[in-house]
Amino acid sequence: MTLLHDLAARGVECYGLTFDYGQRHRKELAYAHYWGKKLCAMHKTVSLGAIKSIISSSVLTGKGDIPKQHYTHANQKLTVVPNRNMVMLSIAVAWAENLKIKEVYFGPHANDNAIYPDCRPRFVEVLSMAAQLGTYSQVKIYAPYVHIRKSDIAARGHLLGVDYSRTWSCYEGKKLHCGKCGTCQERKEAFINSHVPDPTIYRQ
Amino acid sequence: MTLLHDLAARGVECYGLTFDYGQRHRKELAYAHYWGKKLCAMHKTVSLGAIKSIISSSVLTGKGDIPKQHYTHANQKLTVVPNRNMVMLSIAVAWAENLKIKEVYFGPHANDNAIYPDCRPRFVEVLSMAAQLGTYSQVKIYAPYVHIRKSDIAARGHLLGVDYSRTWSCYEGKKLHCGKCGTCQERKEAFINSHVPDPTIYRQ
Repeated sequence: MTLLHDLAARGVECYGLTFDYGQRHRKELAYAHYWGKKLCAMHKTVSLGAIKSIISSSVLTGKGDIPKQHYTHANQKLTVVPNRNMVMLSIAVAWAENLKIKEVYFGPHANDNAIYPDCRPRFVEVLSMAAQLGTYSQVKIYAPYVHIRKSDIAARGHLLGVDYSRTWSCYEGKKLHCGKCGTCQERKEAFINSHVPDPTIYRQ
Repeated sequence: MTLLHDLAARGVECYGLTFDYGQRHRKELAYAHYWGKKLCAMHKTVSLGAIKSIISSSVLTGKGDIPKQHYTHANQKLTVVPNRNMVMLSIAVAWAENLKIKEVYFGPHANDNAIYPDCRPRFVEVLSMAAQLGTYSQVKIYAPYVHIRKSDIAARGHLLGVDYSRTWSCYEGKKLHCGKCGTCQERKEAFINSHVPDPTIYRQ
């Protein structure tokens, strides 16, 4: 969401693409739609429901318990949706090719690198090369935050005036952020470490 | 289909994946299902219907006329579904990662190279590198026919005993192969050039 604000603030015409890949809740989809309508020339949400049986191992889309503590190598691995970024990016590249747009942006950050192989700089670089080779418009993939931490993104978002009260991190989809799951803890820390006021109301 | 026979004949346990991406007809899906059930440990057909609006520019999925002559650069380009192979392969890689399988095979051939950028050896090589980087099992993508022509594949299939009467090439989905569209003409030529008997009944 910060990246979208970042591009829109520089006058880039954005086409937003959101994926419903069988998340446990609709909260992040609703917020994506809200910002997509506000900041994009066009915004689409597409469903990956049909490939749910292909990507169903993960706790995020399946029935397993969501890890209730800070990310560790072992429990963060449970939250991996296999090859998710490659699937989503290849669809985004297809849309870009169709619209004759030459740039696709996505927002992995440095905290993701340790565990998620498809959030690493080298992965982005090589997939971008594949996209260039595979399309007539030679579409490129950019991940401008891939080397910076979530706290630096919060600081950048604060400068950009992002309303973080209208963003969602929690793996659960309850009324409030749970405050305990890995992504809630990362969210809290990002605000604390960057000295940016956190508008989130946590249940715990 | 020849590649599937080729792998199965060497005792490779295959998991078949077929995509319904909004083709104009169900013929190739029905044949894929037939061979998938026969030769694979498991076969799935997944629908890309939800991303149809993303990939809808092509005549294969849209309403445009199918070119009624031999492939030329201009008219073959009309049959490109944008970034199709990257989308399909990324989903296949996700399934492989889920099944802890390390190899994904697909069957582009040398005739495709000139027009379809996502059928070229370098594209396959780089996308395979991205798949390895993006997955824990370091899944690789193989396209063993990427350097050989369709006629060589027919010769190979003949040796393997492939029943080509149960395969489908025609862009139209009528009772018989039309015999006139680009892919029918390529099919005819592949049999003629390889001196393999052609079991296909063409309308023209």
